[in-house]
Amino acid sequence: MEKYISIKELEEAAASVLPKAARDYYKSGATDEHTLQENKRAFQRLRIRPKCLVGLTDCNLRTTVLGNEVSMPVGISPTAMQRMAHPDGEIANAKAAEKEGVIFTLSTLATSSIEEVAKAAPRAVKWFQLYIYNDREVTRNLVLRAERAGFKAIALTVDTPVFGLRRADVHNKFSLPQHLRLSNFEGFLSTKIHSSGEGSGLNTYVNNLFDKSLTWDEIKWLRSITNLPIIAKGILRGDDAVKAVNAGCSAILVSNHGARQLDGVPASIEALPEVVEAVKHYNVEVYMDGGVSTGTDVYKALTLGAKAVFVGRPALWGLALGGQAGVERMLKIFRTELEYTFNIAGTSSVADITKDMVVHESAYSKL
Amino acid sequence: MEKYISIKELEEAAASVLPKAARDYYKSGATDEHTLQENKRAFQRLRIRPKCLVGLTDCNLRTTVLGNEVSMPVGISPTAMQRMAHPDGEIANAKAAEKEGVIFTLSTLATSSIEEVAKAAPRAVKWFQLYIYNDREVTRNLVLRAERAGFKAIALTVDTPVFGLRRADVHNKFSLPQHLRLSNFEGFLSTKIHSSGEGSGLNTYVNNLFDKSLTWDEIKWLRSITNLPIIAKGILRGDDAVKAVNAGCSAILVSNHGARQLDGVPASIEALPEVVEAVKHYNVEVYMDGGVSTGTDVYKALTLGAKAVFVGRPALWGLALGGQAGVERMLKIFRTELEYTFNIAGTSSVADITKDMVVHESAYSKL
Amino acid sequence: MEKYISIKELEEAAASVLPKAARDYYKSGATDEHTLQENKRAFQRLRIRPKCLVGLTDCNLRTTVLGNEVSMPVGISPTAMQRMAHPDGEIANAKAAEKEGVIFTLSTLATSSIEEVAKAAPRAVKWFQLYIYNDREVTRNLVLRAERAGFKAIALTVDTPVFGLRRADVHNKFSLPQHLRLSNFEGFLSTKIHSSGEGSGLNTYVNNLFDKSLTWDEIKWLRSITNLPIIAKGILRGDDAVKAVNAGCSAILVSNHGARQLDGVPASIEALPEVVEAVKHYNVEVYMDGGVSTGTDVYKALTLGAKAVFVGRPALWGLALGGQAGVERMLKIFRTELEYTFNIAGTSSVADITKDMVVHESAYSKL
Amino acid sequence: MEKYISIKELEEAAASVLPKAARDYYKSGATDEHTLQENKRAFQRLRIRPKCLVGLTDCNLRTTVLGNEVSMPVGISPTAMQRMAHPDGEIANAKAAEKEGVIFTLSTLATSSIEEVAKAAPRAVKWFQLYIYNDREVTRNLVLRAERAGFKAIALTVDTPVFGLRRADVHNKFSLPQHLRLSNFEGFLSTKIHSSGEGSGLNTYVNNLFDKSLTWDEIKWLRSITNLPIIAKGILRGDDAVKAVNAGCSAILVSNHGARQLDGVPASIEALPEVVEAVKHYNVEVYMDGGVSTGTDVYKALTLGAKAVFVGRPALWGLALGGQAGVERMLKIFRTELEYTFNIAGTSSVADITKDMVVHESAYSKL
Ligand SMILES: Cc1cc2nc3c(=O)[nH]c(=O)nc-3n(C[C@H](O)[C@H](O)[C@H](O)COP(=O)(O)O)c2cc1C
Ligand SMILES: Cc1cc2nc3c(=O)[nH]c(=O)nc-3n(C[C@H](O)[C@H](O)[C@H](O)COP(=O)(O)O)c2cc1C
Ligand SMILES: Cc1cc2nc3c(=O)[nH]c(=O)nc-3n(C[C@H](O)[C@H](O)[C@H](O)COP(=O)(O)O)c2cc1C
Ligand SMILES: Cc1cc2nc3c(=O)[nH]c(=O)nc-3n(C[C@H](O)[C@H](O)[C@H](O)COP(=O)(O)O)c2cc1C
Repeated sequence: MEKYISIKELEEAAASVLPKAARDYYKSGATDEHTLQENKRAFQRLRIRPKCLVGLTDCNLRTTVLGNEVSMPVGISPTAMQRMAHPDGEIANAKAAEKEGVIFTLSTLATSSIEEVAKAAPRAVKWFQLYIYNDREVTRNLVLRAERAGFKAIALTVDTPVFGLRRADVHNKFSLPQHLRLSNFEGFLSTKIHSSGEGSGLNTYVNNLFDKSLTWDEIKWLRSITNLPIIAKGILRGDDAVKAVNAGCSAILVSNHGARQLDGVPASIEALPEVVEAVKHYNVEVYMDGGVSTGTDVYKALTLGAKAVFVGRPALWGLALGGQAGVERMLKIFRTELEYTFNIAGTSSVADITKDMVVHESAYSKL
Repeated sequence: MEKYISIKELEEAAASVLPKAARDYYKSGATDEHTLQENKRAFQRLRIRPKCLVGLTDCNLRTTVLGNEVSMPVGISPTAMQRMAHPDGEIANAKAAEKEGVIFTLSTLATSSIEEVAKAAPRAVKWFQLYIYNDREVTRNLVLRAERAGFKAIALTVDTPVFGLRRADVHNKFSLPQHLRLSNFEGFLSTKIHSSGEGSGLNTYVNNLFDKSLTWDEIKWLRSITNLPIIAKGILRGDDAVKAVNAGCSAILVSNHGARQLDGVPASIEALPEVVEAVKHYNVEVYMDGGVSTGTDVYKALTLGAKAVFVGRPALWGLALGGQAGVERMLKIFRTELEYTFNIAGTSSVADITKDMVVHESAYSKL
Repeated sequence: MEKYISIKELEEAAASVLPKAARDYYKSGATDEHTLQENKRAFQRLRIRPKCLVGLTDCNLRTTVLGNEVSMPVGISPTAMQRMAHPDGEIANAKAAEKEGVIFTLSTLATSSIEEVAKAAPRAVKWFQLYIYNDREVTRNLVLRAERAGFKAIALTVDTPVFGLRRADVHNKFSLPQHLRLSNFEGFLSTKIHSSGEGSGLNTYVNNLFDKSLTWDEIKWLRSITNLPIIAKGILRGDDAVKAVNAGCSAILVSNHGARQLDGVPASIEALPEVVEAVKHYNVEVYMDGGVSTGTDVYKALTLGAKAVFVGRPALWGLALGGQAGVERMLKIFRTELEYTFNIAGTSSVADITKDMVVHESAYSKL
Repeated sequence: MEKYISIKELEEAAASVLPKAARDYYKSGATDEHTLQENKRAFQRLRIRPKCLVGLTDCNLRTTVLGNEVSMPVGISPTAMQRMAHPDGEIANAKAAEKEGVIFTLSTLATSSIEEVAKAAPRAVKWFQLYIYNDREVTRNLVLRAERAGFKAIALTVDTPVFGLRRADVHNKFSLPQHLRLSNFEGFLSTKIHSSGEGSGLNTYVNNLFDKSLTWDEIKWLRSITNLPIIAKGILRGDDAVKAVNAGCSAILVSNHGARQLDGVPASIEALPEVVEAVKHYNVEVYMDGGVSTGTDVYKALTLGAKAVFVGRPALWGLALGGQAGVERMLKIFRTELEYTFNIAGTSSVADITKDMVVHESAYSKL
């Protein structure tokens, strides 16, 4: 794995080992994929303004996220069906996260169960990503199992009343390979995703089983059944962030779902400042994910107020290339790049980061 | 047709089935075609700001346009000589519109007559697009026939004192194929377009027969001969919109004629906000067409104040590929994409759409 | 020639008939040629805002330039050594201008003499472009001959203390072909440009013979030796325009010399508004040249306050392809495109053009 | 060498003669190399506004830098290990600088020693670039030797607590070729850079030996051991510039280290105005380096307040192609292009340059 020294290299190499349907499913964005590109390009419009001779001692990437200590402010976002990338799937991913001391988030639609993951990576800080099923018993069950298994938070995905339109999946009639299961479920909930018939099998599954009529009151219901902190994942507006907080969320994950839900929405990093501003007088944390692919991306997000950032696809590329070792490599690349960034920007710890460390490129058009 | 799941795919496939002269005629824009590109690119500079957990029930695309109910806020703009794309031409197009419950607009320069279309698609909401001929009897006749045939509105095209300079047509010495007629006319008015001699036959036809000296008083004359509402099609400025309304128009269709008239004008979607603002205190509807090719484009136009949007070329691509079925497919693609957009943006009905759902990308350059 | 219907087509075709050294000399811009590209691109950042139903009668392109009537507000800028493009060189160019009723400007460095041109195109409105030689007698002589030959104005080029660095000319060791002469001169002044030795022969010529220490007082001297109106050609700043006017110029030609002098200066069309603004209270005319290649470019310049625009290279491409007929074709293309623009923008005459007919694209970023 | 007439040509030719490891080391920027591109592109966003007829006499590029006269405001930035480009390395470079009358800066990490360079180019204005070693004796020694050898200033590089992450170097396991030495050192300090083991040998060297915990107090220590003026090299922020000045620096070299330290920082030319503004009331000089590759780049930097500009890679390209003669050629290209720029912009001497000679391109979006 050592030959890979950038996320871009991981991505390219993974593309050549993954079967077409899985590769397409993992990399696609919604419809024309403009936002998919903007998720990355928007970072390039930000400039880091390094400080010199600040008296650096060892630079420290450690931070806390919802009270849990992590070795760096980079965590793993939930992505569905990871066993398509590697036989060890979520297990490998979680073990890498444990090894590297970062947060691992397990998808509701995982091909490894809550309990399997908990057992494989007992010391990892684990979050459970929740989709709310029409059947609230099913939903409650997931939450209670996650709580029981030692997961530290529920990341409720709020941007998915339906799944986005990803054209490659429709053309591929995407479905979960026959030998895999949605392991958090029993019976048809675990296999229904196979029989796609037409279009994307995933979208059919979601349309039939998820509750798209959710309101912010759902958070209150969740609050009533669990003591775990709740993170609203998928917010792109300040007013929505405030609603989430008022409904009882402890944190906001600014995200456009890897540009997979709706093309034409802002890049996540574009939306971040508005959310940070909106909730600044509340006692909540703000994170972001979407398009993060270098240490400087992470740093830019931190300067704009993110407490941590998360990555989805990079973990899949690592997984595809080398299972646990591949994910570890991915995390090491981020760690290395982030250390370089801290050092050269003159930042010795996460707490040290201030807003004046970044400006938008347009600031330099004023002479 | 089901294999096509985007307008882009329809366009590419149609390009390979259409004869060169027709393809060129359909796709061309004026001179250097910068505006042709901008009509699409300008949409990409707008960002949708989705709202989460709004309590969606079934999302409803229905709306009314000039008092007529339609199944979605997407209609078909008039395009001339559709039998070059498919033997059934305007008939197929109108029947698809009827089937899908959207507005169909018949061009003055159609290869199917007002009466043929009315008979083929009796329940469709049909509009008649009017060019004013030097010979006012000819003109009045068209209007009265449209009214009599049950068309619901007259879309007076106001951007065409002469036809635009489309280079491919000049090179091709474009003319209507011998076996086709401008079916709304008899005698030489229906065939004159054949004998091109030099340059584009269409331009010669228009130069000889259309009245380019029109003023807004023409609207008053039109008002005096018909009870149908009049739509001013081809407006790009707020002041012109106000003149149109004062002259008696019931609606404004913001359009640069598919970038076919003058290169270098604003993209239609760029011009829309100015027009909406200018007529906001009048009781009129505003629509737009030009470059609309995805459901998110439609949605963006609605947030900026359009009551409906129209598409020209997409219908031609559908027509070329599959006649009525092809146009239906085209409309279904828009419907599907628009449903996704409504759902994920958190919009349950057209009435629900508010201005804050969209911003220009430049808004995100302020940190 | 009729097969060419755009300046772009003329340019491409000419490139394939011209010998390399001439082609390179004609098309080059200074050093990296960024401004060469911007001269064209800057037009694309402007949007025409057409008016509808304005009651057009025949649209009239005629205008006056320094009191002389011309058939359209497009004239021919001076370019050196035109016999490299065609045996008839400046003669053919001037005759085409005469035939088309537009201004022809003869370069000091012409391969046809003042008198030859005057004789060949007696009814053309001719201007003489002046470079000031160290030897003031030589200079005075040129001016007096032009005046005597019926030229209507002196266009003093003020942007050329030295000639720009055009890399292709240096590599080609550019020099005038042996069989040609700088026909406005006798003896070594007419042939010195042959012996390049090293680098561009033109630059050596200019460095040795032109006076680079000119000040605005030179205009006063010119004023004292001729009654012809003086045009300052090559201005890019408002303050310089005011100086030119105060020194006695009757007009300003905003120009960056076809991007041949200094890379990194503004596109001519970018600089135009500043100059127009600066001299608006003086009784002078403002023109522009640089990158004009379509009728909409011309129109945009007029809306920003130019009384006329000029073209350099387009005449060379026409000349190379067909001598006089080629230049006529070039002018006809502009006339046709400009007529289209007037008609569709709703402008019936040059006097009709107002500033609100154009905006910068950035105006459309405010929603 | 005369066949090369632009820095771009030098760069392309050098790329084909250099061995891969050296070429990669010389041309790389940090990680994704966006800033590497922006260092050049940012110049293109600036427009020079030339003045006409200013009464030029011979244009004079001479200026002083920290009290030393130089023949033009272009100097040579320190780059490490120049013998990889040519056997004569720093010696050739310094002799070229001497010949051309410009400043030469010797890197701490040179493959020729302070004394060798002083002896080879006694009349050159030489600066010594300093990295501060953990071992302060080593550091003091370097400074004292430079002072003794007649160097005129110490350029303390302040942007390098660690070396940037340049991917090609990591892949190449970059190390100094066996036959070369870091000549300013004895023993292992001079050869340790050979044994890279893993990743870039340079980064390992730096991490082990440089002191990354420096503060601005270090400047005071330096002030206490030498009378040479101190230049802070690598500043990108106004506040840091003020700190440098307050700590005793005589000049600021605005630099992002050739985009080699941290990707995503501003282009050097973007950062320049902020620094100039910040220290304008102090009696210090400001320079810049990074991406300077034409005479107009130099000119633009001067208009924004730089007293001189420096070039790193261009000297390496010249060196690779022709040793001393190659560097001389590189300097001659800059001189020629700068003379053209002065002449055509209407600037007769460095002192003549004013801020109004340049604007950002965005200034031209206001009509
Ligand atoms: C293949 C794939 C599957 C995903 N599955 C889920 C999921 O099950 N639940 C969820 O909340 N987000 C899911 N996401 C979104 C990710 O959690 C995350 O928001 C996104 O991947 C971040 O963007 P990035 O991939 O550019 O890092 C998925 C993303 C991808 C790429
Ligand atoms: C081939 C073609 C023919 C057209 N014919 C007419 C016409 O006869 N009357 C009219 O008002 N508009 C006509 N238009 C313009 C359309 O009504 C509409 O404004 C335009 O096509 C919208 O842009 P779009 O093609 O990008 O959707 C035509 C457009 C095309 C592409
Ligand atoms: C080949 C060539 C030769 C030129 N020679 C002269 C000249 O002798 N005198 C002068 O004032 N301008 C000269 N110019 C500049 C033109 O007058 C004019 O400013 C420029 O060509 C306009 O830009 P365009 O070529 O994009 O239309 C020359 C330009 C070219 C391309
Ligand atoms: C190959 C290379 C080696 C360098 N070595 C040093 C160095 O030893 N010390 C230093 O302060 N800067 C060093 N620099 C940075 C240069 O001094 C200078 O800031 C940079 O090269 C300017 O950018 P340019 O190459 O685009 O002109 C180096 C740059 C390069 C390209």
